Amino acid sequence: MIPAKEDLIETYKRVRKYVNRTPVLTSTTINGWIDGEVFFKCENFQKMGAFKMRGAIQAIAKLSDAQKKLGVITHSSGNFGQAVALAAKNLGVKAYIVMPENAPSVKKEAVAGYGGEITFCESTLEARENTSEKIRKETGASFLHPSNNINVILGNSTAAYELLEDIPDLDYILTPVGGGGLLAGTALAAQYFGNGCEVIAGEPFEADDAYRSLQSGKIEVNLTANTIADGLRTHLGDKNFPIIQKLVKDIIRVEEQEIVDAMRIIWERLKIVVEPSCAVPLAALLREKEKFRNKKIGIILSGGNVDLNNLPFS
Amino acid sequence: MIPAKEDLIETYKRVRKYVNRTPVLTSTTINGWIDGEVFFKCENFQKMGAFKMRGAIQAIAKLSDAQKKLGVITHSSGNFGQAVALAAKNLGVKAYIVMPENAPSVKKEAVAGYGGEITFCESTLEARENTSEKIRKETGASFLHPSNNINVILGNSTAAYELLEDIPDLDYILTPVGGGGLLAGTALAAQYFGNGCEVIAGEPFEADDAYRSLQSGKIEVNLTANTIADGLRTHLGDKNFPIIQKLVKDIIRVEEQEIVDAMRIIWERLKIVVEPSCAVPLAALLREKEKFRNKKIGIILSGGNVDLNNLPFS
Repeated sequence: MIPAKEDLIETYKRVRKYVNRTPVLTSTTINGWIDGEVFFKCENFQKMGAFKMRGAIQAIAKLSDAQKKLGVITHSSGNFGQAVALAAKNLGVKAYIVMPENAPSVKKEAVAGYGGEITFCESTLEARENTSEKIRKETGASFLHPSNNINVILGNSTAAYELLEDIPDLDYILTPVGGGGLLAGTALAAQYFGNGCEVIAGEPFEADDAYRSLQSGKIEVNLTANTIADGLRTHLGDKNFPIIQKLVKDIIRVEEQEIVDAMRIIWERLKIVVEPSCAVPLAALLREKEKFRNKKIGIILSGGNVDLNNLPFS
Repeated sequence: MIPAKEDLIETYKRVRKYVNRTPVLTSTTINGWIDGEVFFKCENFQKMGAFKMRGAIQAIAKLSDAQKKLGVITHSSGNFGQAVALAAKNLGVKAYIVMPENAPSVKKEAVAGYGGEITFCESTLEARENTSEKIRKETGASFLHPSNNINVILGNSTAAYELLEDIPDLDYILTPVGGGGLLAGTALAAQYFGNGCEVIAGEPFEADDAYRSLQSGKIEVNLTANTIADGLRTHLGDKNFPIIQKLVKDIIRVEEQEIVDAMRIIWERLKIVVEPSCAVPLAALLREKEKFRNKKIGIILSGGNVDLNNLPFS
């Protein structure tokens, strides 16, 4: 079932108390290149460094009191683990986070710093799922999926909600698409609060499952996902795909070099630190410049948790 | 002669029309480490990417009409060349910029993009000065020094002026010190608009001429300046030293590794791109934590024009 406008409003009233209202940046130079106006919604400045905080707050807050007492669990090598740990802390709920042993130490430290109880496992999806399931059975904690959960999608919608409050007459909003939670939430916000605002996703050619899913009408997966945009290697789910199918008409695929180039532009021109996944929508915009001429385009910069020891510039 | 309060107010009224009012960022984590409150004034978000825009605007605007017709000239391998080119463009004045042939191409392109007329020379100070002098004689253009010019100092004061408008009760403002133009301008603003606000500079041990100058009472130079903080290798001048001598009591010196560590903290925690020179005040603060406990400290982050191909992280 697709959430209603009232659901998004109710979500925003709750989530806003726990998140930063992130700034919207612009660049005269970038606007000049595309002959239009681009508004960057900076979720890299969000608490714990990514939009994922929004969905985590909503998903935990909507649990029953009985569920909250038993805690929450997720498995993550990336931002969602940190988001669940911090959101749970803010809401007074215990968080169990399953992480692969080889996760970057900065992410392990962040989860621990937010008070999450970490269980390490091998870095296969199977090991992560089995470990999570074992803890769930032992503790009764509620499992939270990072993208295929209606409350996560609702929480994610609040980034575009704020962006449309700031810039009401956007022609387009562009997001990356990985698991589909940000894209679905953004599409809902644009549908209810935009003024003819169309939502388009950027996706790496190397992990173009969402593009193929829209074409085939069913959820496709990636056999390989050899992309620098490490947040976008996952596939859509049965909760977000119907929303995306209904509201998103276009996904623009981009090459790896285009992602790195767009990332460099954001770092050099906006002077901000963003993840490779963040650069995919700008890469898409620059690839299909003609489409966006004289338009007002919002871009959700999804996060800024990047390993400074392992940057793609050279 | 030390500028009066009215000079700073008059300067701000002029300069504000041409610069960004840059944001002030904070980090709960950093505040926790020092048990105080740190307010980062983000001049990396300034036009052309550094506070130098402020001094360049004031210095060019204060020329006579006859001088403006003949243009301005400076030599620079760094931000001041870009600042003069852009400020001159905004004020309808011709800019001649002398640059070493081996300057990073991104800086050459930026100066050219702002409409500056570039003359290349060898990368010695002598070649730069001789080339500038030759153009000055040929054109009658006014030479602008990047730091030892009262109007540049006045222009620079506007960053701390804005910071003190936003956070009036700062106990300290920390800046880096290289040529001394930012430190002198900040000290003036703190003197006139602060409420007992003390200004302290951070300086690399590897280029500690300003520290030694305060000790000896005369302008000292660096025989070597083997520091990553490439904006801080120059020495004080006869216009800014009297101001610094009168108003600045303390300069904290820092090791190279402390600069890199502080730079990483700013990138990772604030999610912004800053130059190594920017990180020196935070390095100073972290080195002498005890001094700043329970205090409110402003830090001027001087700029964000960094070569992404040549970062110190590993």
